[in-house]
Amino acid sequence: MDNPAPDHPADPREPLSDAELRRLLGFAETLADAAAAVTRPHFRAQLAVESKTGAEAFDPVTLADRAAESAIRDLILETYPDHGILGEEHGYRAPAPGDAPQMTWVLDPIDGTRSFIIGVPLWGTLIALNDGRWPVLGVADQPFTGERFIGSRLGATLVHGGATRPLRTRACAELKHAIVGCTTPEIFTAASERAAFDALARSVRLVRYGADCYAYCMLALGLVDLVVEACLKPYDIQALIPIIEAAGGVVTTWSGGDPTQGGQIIAAGDRRAHALALELLAPAASDRP
Amino acid sequence: MDNPAPDHPADPREPLSDAELRRLLGFAETLADAAAAVTRPHFRAQLAVESKTGAEAFDPVTLADRAAESAIRDLILETYPDHGILGEEHGYRAPAPGDAPQMTWVLDPIDGTRSFIIGVPLWGTLIALNDGRWPVLGVADQPFTGERFIGSRLGATLVHGGATRPLRTRACAELKHAIVGCTTPEIFTAASERAAFDALARSVRLVRYGADCYAYCMLALGLVDLVVEACLKPYDIQALIPIIEAAGGVVTTWSGGDPTQGGQIIAAGDRRAHALALELLAPAASDRP
Repeated sequence: MDNPAPDHPADPREPLSDAELRRLLGFAETLADAAAAVTRPHFRAQLAVESKTGAEAFDPVTLADRAAESAIRDLILETYPDHGILGEEHGYRAPAPGDAPQMTWVLDPIDGTRSFIIGVPLWGTLIALNDGRWPVLGVADQPFTGERFIGSRLGATLVHGGATRPLRTRACAELKHAIVGCTTPEIFTAASERAAFDALARSVRLVRYGADCYAYCMLALGLVDLVVEACLKPYDIQALIPIIEAAGGVVTTWSGGDPTQGGQIIAAGDRRAHALALELLAPAASDRP
Repeated sequence: MDNPAPDHPADPREPLSDAELRRLLGFAETLADAAAAVTRPHFRAQLAVESKTGAEAFDPVTLADRAAESAIRDLILETYPDHGILGEEHGYRAPAPGDAPQMTWVLDPIDGTRSFIIGVPLWGTLIALNDGRWPVLGVADQPFTGERFIGSRLGATLVHGGATRPLRTRACAELKHAIVGCTTPEIFTAASERAAFDALARSVRLVRYGADCYAYCMLALGLVDLVVEACLKPYDIQALIPIIEAAGGVVTTWSGGDPTQGGQIIAAGDRRAHALALELLAPAASDRP
């Protein structure tokens, strides 16, 4: 079977130099640090306040989400005022027009808000930089465990406890060996989606729910073989694409197309498992050609 | 509605003194330390070896599970040779007969093996001490995040990063406000169980899958309102009972009965939510009177 994953769009422009990419990766980490400084004090903070104000009156995850995105946006505006910003909480700001690649930061300050509100450290701050065609770098940061997953064409790494290790997906040639991650079975709102996912679920070794963006990180780490989801937004997936690709994996829509706009997404550590899963998912693909 | 939770069995024997209970709590922490020293190096260790030997040939979670239980058992035999042991991996050893309370350690070295194998730090080492009637202390330890949840009649605490905080469940008077944790919907093998759980799921604010023993700990921390499961073993639940009870919650079977033997289990942070959930679950209770 031919490789079903799309090539990245051809880009006639001058690519980013390695030095510039490293500078931007460093800046993305600065953004992650700023977000973590905001989110960490809010994580599990409802403990202190909920009894006073009632569960409905106080929503720490929304406060943390907005404040973290504001902190990130302020740093971008200060350092790269020509760059665009697409954030979950505060919307879209176009990059300045010009001949140079139009760079846009794509942000989800707290991906996995449901994990956040129940105190489970599987949420993450997602930061991507998109050059107008593809995310050229991605950071997925988990402030409570202190894990930071970083990817670009320069490589994919996990930074944890002062140590840096390379990320590498594992081989998975057959679905019967595959471990599949998925946030929740309720993510599949269309009956055809649910049926396609159920067909996949029956074909694999194990389906595991509840890991949010952390499931994609575990795929990059070589512990999960497939992540299958639907209804994603661009900021839910863009940061994870460079991490998974640099670790040896692939991310597409259910029809094998461009995943950068979200929707129905499949990530795979091995292109063989990806191709086999697509056969089961493609009939329910909403963007199929 | 009357309180549906059972009182603990009456015990005519001399209770443990506070000093003895504190000594046993300290020993339980020693056991958790010994287990962590074994499990941590195995967590995510399949990365290094799986490509050499194949996924089927090497099972790090089983190795870690067995080695951790052996480490715990050795310490118990050395320090409290009269105590019994019930472990997931190495079976049952009866306590020495006698007039004193017959103490049995109830152990699950890695609860949440599926989280363990996908690299997600929601598994835990569960250690309970049962006096022949009820677990008098419980420890749930997560070595990767460094969180240790401890409970007994002396109180419930979370130790993390050198800090100790009290555990306290939160109020939840109505199911529509409840957040429910559950390992996976596939845990309900009987159709009646699944139907009863689905009825509950439709009545609550949010159902969250995948958190294993961590969901009970988040209930004790006041972030989850109900945990509902089935097919549990005694060593899956006994350590969590003293933690949840000392935090203000309740643990029973689906009929409101004694939870120490596992089976269909419900934990609640608030007895009002517990009573309302039991109304939906009791028709499927396999131990109903």
